[in-house]
Amino acid sequence: MSLKLNTFPKEDGFRMPGEFEPHEGCWMIWPERNDNFRLGAKPAQAAYAEVAHAISRFEPVTMLVSTSQFSAARKALDPEVRVIEMAANDAWVRDTGPTFVVNDRTKEVRGIDWRFNAWGGLIDGAYFPWDQDDKVACKICEIERKKIYSLENFVLEGGSIHVDGEGTLIATETCLLHESRNPHLSKKEIEDTLKNYLNLEKIIWLPQGIYLDETNEHVDNILHFIAPGKVVLAWTDEKSDPQYEMSAKAYDVLSDAVDAKGRKLEIFKLHIPEPVLISKDESGGVDCVDGTLPRKEGDRQAASYANFYIANGAVILPVFNDDRFDQRAIDTLKRAMPGYEIVPVYAREILLGGGNIHCITQQQPKVQEKK
Amino acid sequence: MSLKLNTFPKEDGFRMPGEFEPHEGCWMIWPERNDNFRLGAKPAQAAYAEVAHAISRFEPVTMLVSTSQFSAARKALDPEVRVIEMAANDAWVRDTGPTFVVNDRTKEVRGIDWRFNAWGGLIDGAYFPWDQDDKVACKICEIERKKIYSLENFVLEGGSIHVDGEGTLIATETCLLHESRNPHLSKKEIEDTLKNYLNLEKIIWLPQGIYLDETNEHVDNILHFIAPGKVVLAWTDEKSDPQYEMSAKAYDVLSDAVDAKGRKLEIFKLHIPEPVLISKDESGGVDCVDGTLPRKEGDRQAASYANFYIANGAVILPVFNDDRFDQRAIDTLKRAMPGYEIVPVYAREILLGGGNIHCITQQQPKVQEKK
Repeated sequence: MSLKLNTFPKEDGFRMPGEFEPHEGCWMIWPERNDNFRLGAKPAQAAYAEVAHAISRFEPVTMLVSTSQFSAARKALDPEVRVIEMAANDAWVRDTGPTFVVNDRTKEVRGIDWRFNAWGGLIDGAYFPWDQDDKVACKICEIERKKIYSLENFVLEGGSIHVDGEGTLIATETCLLHESRNPHLSKKEIEDTLKNYLNLEKIIWLPQGIYLDETNEHVDNILHFIAPGKVVLAWTDEKSDPQYEMSAKAYDVLSDAVDAKGRKLEIFKLHIPEPVLISKDESGGVDCVDGTLPRKEGDRQAASYANFYIANGAVILPVFNDDRFDQRAIDTLKRAMPGYEIVPVYAREILLGGGNIHCITQQQPKVQEKK
Repeated sequence: MSLKLNTFPKEDGFRMPGEFEPHEGCWMIWPERNDNFRLGAKPAQAAYAEVAHAISRFEPVTMLVSTSQFSAARKALDPEVRVIEMAANDAWVRDTGPTFVVNDRTKEVRGIDWRFNAWGGLIDGAYFPWDQDDKVACKICEIERKKIYSLENFVLEGGSIHVDGEGTLIATETCLLHESRNPHLSKKEIEDTLKNYLNLEKIIWLPQGIYLDETNEHVDNILHFIAPGKVVLAWTDEKSDPQYEMSAKAYDVLSDAVDAKGRKLEIFKLHIPEPVLISKDESGGVDCVDGTLPRKEGDRQAASYANFYIANGAVILPVFNDDRFDQRAIDTLKRAMPGYEIVPVYAREILLGGGNIHCITQQQPKVQEKK
C-alpha cells in the first residue's frame, strides 16, 4: 500500500488523537549507533528492551531492527514483542515514524509522513546522512497497509508537537520556527499546515523547552498532554538553574491560554531531576565521529520526567536513580492521572543518546467513537 | 511474535492446505543478485513486477525488498502491492519462505521454518552464504504475528513438495533424498518428519524432476496439484529428449498411485516448451563470481509450464514466446482447471535465474472450514 494522498487529513475527516486515547500498539526502533550510544549500544539496547517489555504489558509492541542486529534483538526481546527488519540511521521513532490520524466515522487510520532532517539538517542536525530515517514513516505505513499523506517539503518531528485530540496543539517556538526546519514558511503558514494535517483550531506556542535539549527543545521533553484540558509541565524550584526561566515562561503561557474548546488548562508541575552529567566512562564508550554531535564528559543532559509514554492504561516513566525527585514524579503523576498504572524505567542510557522514553516510542491509535 | 513451538503441527491439529485452497495473500522477494540475474537484475525485476501485478488482481501481494532497492522497487510496483524491507540472498520465496499450515477448527494459521541451504549447501548449493535466506521464514511470520514451528536440523525447500491438503504429498527422490539435504536421516525418517509437520498419510515419490533443474529437480517444476485427486505433469513427446524418460517414469508412478483418500489420480500432461538456451548476450550480462552457479552461453534452462502459481481463482502461467507450446499449455490448463482465469506472463527472465513463477511466490492461506 503506497497510496499517497494529495488532500488534507482535515478535509478528509481525519484528526490526530491524543496519546491518552486507545492504542492499537506501539512502534520502537532498536538502537545501535556506536557514535551516539556507548559500548556498542548494548546498555541502551537493554534499556530499550526494558521499555518494550514494560509497554507490551499494556499493548502490542513492534521493534524495528537493522539486518545486522536482527537476530540479536530477537533474542534480547520477549517473544510477545514483534520484531521487524528496517533500516534506520538512529532509534527515535517518535520523530521518524508516521503521525497517525484517525477518522472517527469510518474507523480508518492513516499515516502522515513529514520530512525528517535529523533535527536540523546541515544547519544543526545531529548526524549525516538521515536518508533511512526519512523512509521509516512510509515503511511503517506499508507494513500496516495504511494510506499515507506524504509532505514533500515540510520538516517536522513527532516529538515537537503534542495534541489533545480535540483541536489543540502545543509546540515550542525554538523548534518549529527554527531556521533549520522550515525557513521557507512563515509562522502562519506553519500553523496552517499543522491545522490542515492534524485537524486543529488552536496552537499554543511555548517560547522554549528543556535546557540544552539538542532537538531545539522539543515540546515532548517539557510538557505532556495527559487528557483534554490537562497538561504536565517540567518544572524546577531552583531559581539559579537556567531551566527555571524556561519553565516559568511556559507556565505563564499555559496559564493564560484557552484550548480549542475554550477551556483553561489544568497544569501539573513535574519537577526535573538533579542535573544529569555525562561521566568520563560514559563519554569514553562512544565513538567520536566527525559530523555527529559529540558526547563529552561533564555535559549536562536534558533530563525530564515529562518525556514519558502513555500506553493503554499505563504511564511508562523515565527515572534516573534520583533519590529526591524520582518518587516525587511518580507521586505527581499518580495524582494527575488516576486510573493509570505508573511504571518507572531507569532511563539514563536512553537519555545519554539524546532523548527519552517518549522519543523512542510511537503509538498507533485504535479508532473509536469520540466520547 | 517469536513463539517457537516444540510440538508437531499434526498433533496440534494443523495441516498444509493445497495451493488451490483460498489465500490470504502472496509473498514475493525482489530480485537483485548481479551474479544470477543479468543487467543488474533490471529485466528480472520487470518480470517479477509483472507477476506481482498479475497476482494482485486476485489476492494481496507483499514484495520483500532489500534496503538498497526499497525505493526503486516501491516506484516500480503498483500502489496496491505492499512493499516491506527484508534482507535476502536471492529471490525465491517458495523455497526460503515459511510453509503455512492451518487449523480448520480454530481458524489459526502458523508457519513452518525449515532450514534452507541454497539447494545443497557446501555440497552442491547455488551460492554462499545463505544466512539471510534462512531467516526469511521467521521474519515473514513475525510480520504476520504467526506462531512458528522451527526445525533446527531439517533442510527443505517449499518448492520440493506439493500437497493436496487432504493427506497426500508428492516429492522427487532426487531432491529430498540427496546427500546435500538431510544425509543424517533415512527415507523413513524424512517421511515421518513431513507427515508430522504437514499432516500427511501418504507420500508419493517421483524418481526425478525436470532435466538440468539445478534444485536437484524440485517437484514443483514437473508437477502441480491442481485439486485433490488431480495433477498436471510436465511432459514431452520428443523421445530423444532426456526429459522424455524422466516424465515417463513420473507418469508411471502417478498412474499406479492412490492418494491418502484411496483415490486414483487424474493426470493432465502439460507439454514442455522447445528447449530454452541461454544466449551470449544473456550470459554476458551476469557477473561471474566464484562459488555461484555460472550462467553460460548455450546452457539449457529447465523450462516447464508446470511451474505456475495458483492464485484465488486464477493461474499465473509462465510462457516463453513459444509458438507451438505456449497456447497448448494454456488450453490444457483451461481444460484441467475450469473456473480459473489463465493469466500468461512471459517468464524467460525469471527462468534465466534458475526457477519460475511458482518458485518466486509463496501463498499465505486463509482458513476456512474444510469442505
